[in-house]
Amino acid sequence: MSGRMKLWWESLRPATRSLHAPGGLQKCTSRQGPLARSKATYSTRATTAEKLARPNLPLWTTSRALLLAGALASIGYAVGVNDAGNHAHELTPRPPKYASKKDMDKAISELRSLLGEDAVSTDDEDLQAHGYSEWSSINIDQLPVAVAYPKNTEEVSQIAKVATKYKIPMVPFSGGSSLEANFAAPFGGFSIDFAFMDQILAIHAEDMDVVVQPSMQWMELNDKLKHTGLFFPVDPGPSAKIGGMIGTSCSGTNAFRYGTMKDWVINLTVVLPDGRIIKTRRRPRKTSAGYNLTGLFVGAEGTLGIVTEATLKLAVIPQETKVAVATFPTIRDAAAAAMQVIRSGVPVAAMEIMDDVQMSVINKAGGTNRTWKEVPTLFFKFAGTTAGVQDNIKTTTQIAKRNNGGDIVYAKTDQEAHDLWKARKDSLWSMLSLRREGDEVWSTDVGVPISRLPDIVDLSKKELDDLGLFASILGHIGDGNFHASILYNRKDPAERERVEHVVHNMVDRALEMEGTCTGEHGIGLGKKQSLIDELGVDTINVMQTLKRSLDPHWLMNPGKIFDAVNAENTRNQHESTAASTLERPRNK
Amino acid sequence: MSGRMKLWWESLRPATRSLHAPGGLQKCTSRQGPLARSKATYSTRATTAEKLARPNLPLWTTSRALLLAGALASIGYAVGVNDAGNHAHELTPRPPKYASKKDMDKAISELRSLLGEDAVSTDDEDLQAHGYSEWSSINIDQLPVAVAYPKNTEEVSQIAKVATKYKIPMVPFSGGSSLEANFAAPFGGFSIDFAFMDQILAIHAEDMDVVVQPSMQWMELNDKLKHTGLFFPVDPGPSAKIGGMIGTSCSGTNAFRYGTMKDWVINLTVVLPDGRIIKTRRRPRKTSAGYNLTGLFVGAEGTLGIVTEATLKLAVIPQETKVAVATFPTIRDAAAAAMQVIRSGVPVAAMEIMDDVQMSVINKAGGTNRTWKEVPTLFFKFAGTTAGVQDNIKTTTQIAKRNNGGDIVYAKTDQEAHDLWKARKDSLWSMLSLRREGDEVWSTDVGVPISRLPDIVDLSKKELDDLGLFASILGHIGDGNFHASILYNRKDPAERERVEHVVHNMVDRALEMEGTCTGEHGIGLGKKQSLIDELGVDTINVMQTLKRSLDPHWLMNPGKIFDAVNAENTRNQHESTAASTLERPRNK
Repeated sequence: MSGRMKLWWESLRPATRSLHAPGGLQKCTSRQGPLARSKATYSTRATTAEKLARPNLPLWTTSRALLLAGALASIGYAVGVNDAGNHAHELTPRPPKYASKKDMDKAISELRSLLGEDAVSTDDEDLQAHGYSEWSSINIDQLPVAVAYPKNTEEVSQIAKVATKYKIPMVPFSGGSSLEANFAAPFGGFSIDFAFMDQILAIHAEDMDVVVQPSMQWMELNDKLKHTGLFFPVDPGPSAKIGGMIGTSCSGTNAFRYGTMKDWVINLTVVLPDGRIIKTRRRPRKTSAGYNLTGLFVGAEGTLGIVTEATLKLAVIPQETKVAVATFPTIRDAAAAAMQVIRSGVPVAAMEIMDDVQMSVINKAGGTNRTWKEVPTLFFKFAGTTAGVQDNIKTTTQIAKRNNGGDIVYAKTDQEAHDLWKARKDSLWSMLSLRREGDEVWSTDVGVPISRLPDIVDLSKKELDDLGLFASILGHIGDGNFHASILYNRKDPAERERVEHVVHNMVDRALEMEGTCTGEHGIGLGKKQSLIDELGVDTINVMQTLKRSLDPHWLMNPGKIFDAVNAENTRNQHESTAASTLERPRNK
Repeated sequence: MSGRMKLWWESLRPATRSLHAPGGLQKCTSRQGPLARSKATYSTRATTAEKLARPNLPLWTTSRALLLAGALASIGYAVGVNDAGNHAHELTPRPPKYASKKDMDKAISELRSLLGEDAVSTDDEDLQAHGYSEWSSINIDQLPVAVAYPKNTEEVSQIAKVATKYKIPMVPFSGGSSLEANFAAPFGGFSIDFAFMDQILAIHAEDMDVVVQPSMQWMELNDKLKHTGLFFPVDPGPSAKIGGMIGTSCSGTNAFRYGTMKDWVINLTVVLPDGRIIKTRRRPRKTSAGYNLTGLFVGAEGTLGIVTEATLKLAVIPQETKVAVATFPTIRDAAAAAMQVIRSGVPVAAMEIMDDVQMSVINKAGGTNRTWKEVPTLFFKFAGTTAGVQDNIKTTTQIAKRNNGGDIVYAKTDQEAHDLWKARKDSLWSMLSLRREGDEVWSTDVGVPISRLPDIVDLSKKELDDLGLFASILGHIGDGNFHASILYNRKDPAERERVEHVVHNMVDRALEMEGTCTGEHGIGLGKKQSLIDELGVDTINVMQTLKRSLDPHWLMNPGKIFDAVNAENTRNQHESTAASTLERPRNK
């Protein structure tokens, strides 16, 4: 028996001794009443006469012995649980339990008293705006129960403490332009909107870095940095903000030359689920000191903690930037040219491929003041020293011609360059502008080893045609990453299902080619099953174990990337999620 | 009471009923003997006569009741422990317990029967070679108990299973050239040497990646890749191998242009402490699918798992590479020139600074066929297209002159370039070649935001001079990272202490400047306290929590980066480690 049990036993002995002292028996037998009463509860034949006739009975009756035994067993149970460690729940694979409606309301008023009335909104439109996204391939009916608007890291920490106290999910929100429902609230909870945390906190031009808050928009950041001769090179969709860019480890057209988000973050200030505030690094541009926590939080989609500040590396604005556009008879010719440019060592700043449909979409939308040939087209950006750029253009022209490149247009002026590149930047907007009543655009991306890009683009285009779907293709060809934007009508569930089918096949094809289900948008709600297919159950379980160790109550953006239960058991859940995507969001 | 208790209670009731049936009382009173006996054990006054005189006594005696209660309490305890989850130990902050000598021997013979006699060595010289390093700033007396030589991932998994079964530390070993005792075995255990896993498994030239085993040496890799026109750009010390390069997230002279190890790993095959084999990614060059596990294992110094395969990105060998050397009157002039080159946008491939001492050391060593001016010197490497390189050289020359740059030597031929750069590559060797009997070289590095490099170099040189220590300085100036190589005699503990003192101050100075205690060598045994000073207890605790979640028995390279106990409690331990470094290793 445990140490605690021994103590208890010792404390009991004096009492038992008295029982056995002379006359102890009398004490014992003088205690009849209780048994008679308890007997009465068992035997209906017991009469008052019987009771009175009965001799005295001992201290120890069955019911008392059992009562004592039961009590001790329960104590033992409690002691056992305690001895086993209070953290045991951190490792339970059972789905987490979240706060009741009543507790959520309590938490909201607690937050208001901490941060002020206006700091927490439960306005329906506000909830809609933080639960639904017209960019997203998936929308669910569930919305957050409240939107919190912290003004600094300390307030985020207070929010986390209250949310942990009541077991309320927390979903960070910045630009709200993600494509995989990365900020949806399938379990309700608090959306944490950084609208009031959108500042540059420090510019260290001499160190080539900048410290920003999560809601800083990347193009605005570059405007504010221009005077330093430096810029932040990660360029996703124009509405993206730093917080979400960190969450999804995004990239963009500059990735081939400059790398992705994870390559440009020096350190992060993170609020952990329990409210602790940590900094992942100090401010050296290079370090090998301890685990790369920065690299773990980048791309974690807010499932491990809440990023409240980021120090970002900056690059030098190139002396000169030139843009060129080349047309090709086929995707394969364009891809071949692109690969040869890469292997020639030309340091292209960006290289984008657009298919015939995408070019026709740009013409239809008419956003650019020219009519484009509706054939596969490569957009090049060259950046560097004046002489270097000239040299790059020469080499690239030769390669394009060798690969059946048709008219190659070089922008003579910055304005021309801007107009040319605008066609690339407008591609998704152009597609959206073609929507008629009830139309939606499903935009998704996959990645493959770079040599396989033409194969997967060809196969995917063929399937889209066969299914009679209108879709455009746009690729970061230097990264083996491409986007498909597929138009469908939400009033036609069959069409929506065809889109889901083709997206599913696109992912499977990418995985067969040793690729990935997403190159730059993240997993969110939309691609959880694809992630399991991509990495396998053991790798997902490692991710789940890491998550559980930092977020034992599974409060940080739950339902994203993977589920709380073991990966093996999640397929049904994902299928039901997929089903729920057929329902329209409340505000549509 | 718990569900289990209720069931038990129900099962018992029939028996208790019979007790209360008519005549039950007789049953009860017919049971006197036991109490009499147990009474005898308590009361010395009890006589046989008394016993015989006594009436019958009931079923329930104190001792029986307590026996039952105790038994149930123990059952309850066991149930409680079980309910609390078998993983509770994963979170205990207590220091881990490792196998006894006897169990280690058992494990060794088990391994031999699994992998073959020769696969496990206990030869003393072999243990020395895997526990002691002349490169290391710290050496301890403890050695591994055995060295295992796996031939493939499956065998590594078998080793991990046996080590986990017996609770034996595992320390991965590849090149053995790390500087912070990263592969030392402070808790004994198995050194896992990848000597037989040194192959290229696949070259995907068209995808610009290569799959290698941990003991592939990076220069040999580049020789074998030459025919593809591609190369692996991370260039640490010449003896480094991929496994250790991943463990320490190393870099080298190419880091300014190409980044560090973490930027060049596409995926890893990792054997987890329990023997499970996972792959962190498939083979896309870019992805945002799930947590960046690759980035977590890179730089973890083998404390989270054992890397058995790596897919590495490759870069295009530049058309042309040119080397130039410029001398400056002061470190500050050299640094100013370097910063202006960076800000001009010249894409230098490498830019290294060496102080006057380092240049004199190179002259003394005489490894290069020229005599160098013994003043601060910048080594430049330019790489790219022919025209680009010419342009870069022109700009750099102007900048150097503007900053009092003296003779600027440009290599005309590849041979000349090789000879010039050799001076840089030979720097550490040159220092080692100056050692007299009993001398050691303590080589260490720190990193700071790039603008602070001249400050910290000046301050550190002054302190080294004041302490009368002979030390050379060598910096990756574009990364804000520099190395100091300090000569001392191990027979002079006072001198060794002065070296420790100055290294300690160098680290503190770097941290004051928002820098890091190591730019590219890792923490190992040597810098655990510095890491706590750098990141703080909460951040270290997050790292410990992650480690514990993947390695609950703390078997993977224990004692490195941080200790198993909470960071607050480790200072004494580190001090004792520091003390033990004064003892010489057995083979010296």
